[in-house]
Amino acid sequence: MGNHPQGIGKKRFKIDLEPIGRRVEVEAGVNLLEAAQKAGVDLVASCGGIGLCGTCRVRVIQGEVTPPGLTEEEALDLQQISSGYRLACQTFPLSDVRLDIPPESLTAAQQLQIEGYEVAAQFDPAVSIIDLDLHEPDLDDLRSDLTRVNEYLAGRGFAPLQGELAQMAELSTFLRAHDWQARLVVRPWDGTSLFTAVFAPGSQVAGLAMDMGSTKLALYLVDLENGATLTRTGVMNPQIAYGEDVVSRIAFANKSAENLNLLQSRLVETINLALLEMCGQVGITVAQVVDVVAVGNTAMHHLFCGLPVQQLGAAPYVPVVSEPINARAREVGLRVADGAWLFLPNNIAGYVGADHVSALLATHAYAAQKTTVLVDIGTNTEISLTHQQRVYSCSTASGPAFEGAHIRDGMRAAAGAIDKVRITSQGVQPTTIADAAPVGICGSGILMAVSEMLSAGIIDERGVLNRADQRVRSNNGRAEFLLVPASSTGHGRDIVVTRKDVNEIQLAKGAIRAGINILLAEAGLSPQDVEEYIIAGAFGTYLDLNSAIHIGMFPAVPLERYRQVGNAAGVGAKQMLLSRRQRAEATRIVGRVHYIELTTYPAFTGTFVEAMYMKTG
Amino acid sequence: MGNHPQGIGKKRFKIDLEPIGRRVEVEAGVNLLEAAQKAGVDLVASCGGIGLCGTCRVRVIQGEVTPPGLTEEEALDLQQISSGYRLACQTFPLSDVRLDIPPESLTAAQQLQIEGYEVAAQFDPAVSIIDLDLHEPDLDDLRSDLTRVNEYLAGRGFAPLQGELAQMAELSTFLRAHDWQARLVVRPWDGTSLFTAVFAPGSQVAGLAMDMGSTKLALYLVDLENGATLTRTGVMNPQIAYGEDVVSRIAFANKSAENLNLLQSRLVETINLALLEMCGQVGITVAQVVDVVAVGNTAMHHLFCGLPVQQLGAAPYVPVVSEPINARAREVGLRVADGAWLFLPNNIAGYVGADHVSALLATHAYAAQKTTVLVDIGTNTEISLTHQQRVYSCSTASGPAFEGAHIRDGMRAAAGAIDKVRITSQGVQPTTIADAAPVGICGSGILMAVSEMLSAGIIDERGVLNRADQRVRSNNGRAEFLLVPASSTGHGRDIVVTRKDVNEIQLAKGAIRAGINILLAEAGLSPQDVEEYIIAGAFGTYLDLNSAIHIGMFPAVPLERYRQVGNAAGVGAKQMLLSRRQRAEATRIVGRVHYIELTTYPAFTGTFVEAMYMKTG
Repeated sequence: MGNHPQGIGKKRFKIDLEPIGRRVEVEAGVNLLEAAQKAGVDLVASCGGIGLCGTCRVRVIQGEVTPPGLTEEEALDLQQISSGYRLACQTFPLSDVRLDIPPESLTAAQQLQIEGYEVAAQFDPAVSIIDLDLHEPDLDDLRSDLTRVNEYLAGRGFAPLQGELAQMAELSTFLRAHDWQARLVVRPWDGTSLFTAVFAPGSQVAGLAMDMGSTKLALYLVDLENGATLTRTGVMNPQIAYGEDVVSRIAFANKSAENLNLLQSRLVETINLALLEMCGQVGITVAQVVDVVAVGNTAMHHLFCGLPVQQLGAAPYVPVVSEPINARAREVGLRVADGAWLFLPNNIAGYVGADHVSALLATHAYAAQKTTVLVDIGTNTEISLTHQQRVYSCSTASGPAFEGAHIRDGMRAAAGAIDKVRITSQGVQPTTIADAAPVGICGSGILMAVSEMLSAGIIDERGVLNRADQRVRSNNGRAEFLLVPASSTGHGRDIVVTRKDVNEIQLAKGAIRAGINILLAEAGLSPQDVEEYIIAGAFGTYLDLNSAIHIGMFPAVPLERYRQVGNAAGVGAKQMLLSRRQRAEATRIVGRVHYIELTTYPAFTGTFVEAMYMKTG
Repeated sequence: MGNHPQGIGKKRFKIDLEPIGRRVEVEAGVNLLEAAQKAGVDLVASCGGIGLCGTCRVRVIQGEVTPPGLTEEEALDLQQISSGYRLACQTFPLSDVRLDIPPESLTAAQQLQIEGYEVAAQFDPAVSIIDLDLHEPDLDDLRSDLTRVNEYLAGRGFAPLQGELAQMAELSTFLRAHDWQARLVVRPWDGTSLFTAVFAPGSQVAGLAMDMGSTKLALYLVDLENGATLTRTGVMNPQIAYGEDVVSRIAFANKSAENLNLLQSRLVETINLALLEMCGQVGITVAQVVDVVAVGNTAMHHLFCGLPVQQLGAAPYVPVVSEPINARAREVGLRVADGAWLFLPNNIAGYVGADHVSALLATHAYAAQKTTVLVDIGTNTEISLTHQQRVYSCSTASGPAFEGAHIRDGMRAAAGAIDKVRITSQGVQPTTIADAAPVGICGSGILMAVSEMLSAGIIDERGVLNRADQRVRSNNGRAEFLLVPASSTGHGRDIVVTRKDVNEIQLAKGAIRAGINILLAEAGLSPQDVEEYIIAGAFGTYLDLNSAIHIGMFPAVPLERYRQVGNAAGVGAKQMLLSRRQRAEATRIVGRVHYIELTTYPAFTGTFVEAMYMKTG
């Protein structure tokens, strides 16, 4: 998440820290928080500098820095951003820079005061916390327990409580055991206050936001009293064991009701375990989690909800439910407060899901005044084009190559993965994650490798390896390019790029580019007409834009038109957890979307084949 | 239910049947249906003459008959009643009578046409039945299943469907398996249509109304498409095993959570079994029961709902919930449609429950223009006084004596129970239910016996047996009165009335009369100011009014001011099952009630002691 420096060559910049008057010189790629630390200026950074806490605010007075990413847009309001405020941990210098450090960002300052700042003005969660302090019944006050609670609620502007019988029994027992005092959590809904949970006075109350990707799940635990993100985590989607992509999982689910249940329960078990761990980290119980927002593609959405997916496996790919879902979290088996709620925003079509709606929400791409393309890269890539207040969306099967899958020496983005490659006359210069000895190539590495191989003439536009090139060797008659010899790798085996690897990248980038081109064609636009390209998704954050443009995955427009925003779907989920208005906004987005089904789109095949060629344009 | 003839002496009346022109002579106590049958005129009587089907309508042209009861008020509208229409099976001649038999009441007439007439104009159930006939999805119609259903609903004036995830899954699977046709049952609620059940097209859809008395449960199975009562039954409340009255059951429940669960689950099991049998009788499954209305006193209401009852066991006797309850029927464990609903109207106080609200609703006593007293006799007797649009209510512990309990030779009203007694100079003349050899005395029998013993000088006003009277014998030193000698009984043992028996009746009638007197005192009225006394409850239907007045249980006002209406609470429950307006009306009733807590009422003890004396007044 956030922006990483794009250059590789290690330029050095001078950073001036005002009003303290310190100066430090750092290499490109060092963020402003690290720079300040190097200068001996301790900024508040409760989260350890990962963009979570929003406390390391600085103001850029002079010089050029990387543009603000989604994490910062979450933590700062527009006025602050336009005044030059940034999160130091998320910002990288692009020139010499002069910074103003506000007093509250220094560790000497009162830290509590600004915690929770992250949520800005939009904090308006779907549940309300009410501290009950009731008059005990006596002979002059014969009101029933519920009447007693309802009149207290009415005095504070809340509608009457509505709950299940067991919840009313729980509330009554709790109140009598706690001297008629309690922290009540309700969900205001259509003229009632739906019972959610009851706690001892002062208990912390939390919510869970989730982006359920086909491959990875991103979870955010948020304090629902002040909006602060308590912790976050990413775990693998356990459904991978039953199919790498959603199409194969749908096929698996269709074999029996047990299979469908298995996919559902494995997913929920994994979430439950991750949540248990997160709650342990911050010292709360899962019963204190009273609200959940989940987004995912339509198949993940249905599998999570236990809805049939058979009809998603064949044309016309109709969802069972496209409407926003408000359910009890226990309906899907989530181990949270028994009365906790679950919200899933609406999806657009069988293959453009609530996760894309969430990404549109987080990036505001749907409401952009500028002509904007949002590309949310995953195993399935969803693309939207906003032009003159119209939104065109499609989904394209980019496959898991960018996750490192289906690549001979591919791996996920972990320590030892080659994430960047330069091929010059001096040879191959790879860099790896955590500077470990290379053991494989991750998505951004293989993308850059293919781009560099094209520049170096090792492959041609069709992706064919040039056997005449001495750097291309033959392995049992198959051409391959040696990236790192066994002697330099962590596992003692060669790391190579094969013709098939190149082809996987061509398929993936061709699918994405074809999607972009078809949306543009629908709107009668050329790639140059687009003023902003927003690239979302974990891979989208780390990919090298120059490489992506060089091989024609993205249109050749000036780099400053691109914005890499990280897991926008997850950020959108968190926004919806914190704000009812954002939920309502998500619902409205779908009404503005003109969906284009690529599988039946006449020009798709031709466009796709054309887009597989590797050429800038 | 319905009115029984009050006299015992067998007068004979002539019945003229027009326009057929038949005449028949019958004894008093023979209803008009039996009279017609005796005359060879076959009236439609689908239910067998028990007031259920509303098909045996006749018009009284000349002569005097018993006044219409609740059963008839249910089956006929006001205009019909004022035109002289009556149900033949519920009406008894009080003089020679001339009847007009409308053609549709003759068996030759089309029977189906008038079935369901019972519900009159008020049929407006809480659930709606919608026959779905949907367009199958195709490439030009990519709407999700739910959108498809919602747009169909919108076209018919229904709000969007709201349901649990499993229900959406069920609906989707059902529609795909049934060519997109289904009978959908929803509950319109606050701008949504709550999913209730889905069936094959044409399936019958039913509802259950229940009056849960401390001793007996009355169940009514109703067709929710036309309002017809399909069948009804009465079963014993199994909680009797854990305490005869609600006070002892509350004490039992308070001992442990298991005990509370036991009382709840035994009750629901009994209801489930009774319902299974009823459904079997009419050829439907319990899954076709989609709506339930239940009434009961506050303790029964809480025990049924699994709500804590501890606080009902001690002053200030505060209910957990006094508000109307709308819940899923499965929350209490009812085996009906999984999505079926359960409604319980609001209660008034810890000891004036939803059953009394239901009785007020059914009798319209709460809205009476005349000054009216409603007495709903049970183990607990609830009493309301309506005067100048104000309703005063109280509850009084009359005990189970009128159910035959706590009486030496007491029994429930079953075959062989003495239900009427005359004591003259010729001796004791008992009559028994079903004319069987006497085996005990039921409530109405012991009431009448005590009244006759008072008239005959066998007991005095204090209830003391007159040992000087030769009809009073001594049994181990205790005075008793021989009602039936062993030689004439069914079991070969004497049936007697003891001093203790008389005292039980005094306690019961004293509690009821004290309640009436205190309400009258609150309103500044005398018994003579009351224009109508409505006596409800099973026992209230069969008691001999003259006897009750003679011993001072009821005020001495002309007999025609009394109306015996049977199980009004049950009828009210059925009305609420059939009509949303009646549910809303029940809610409004409580707002008009001024509740008087007798246990802390200063004058109660004195009034109660005074009311135990047996004297007319």
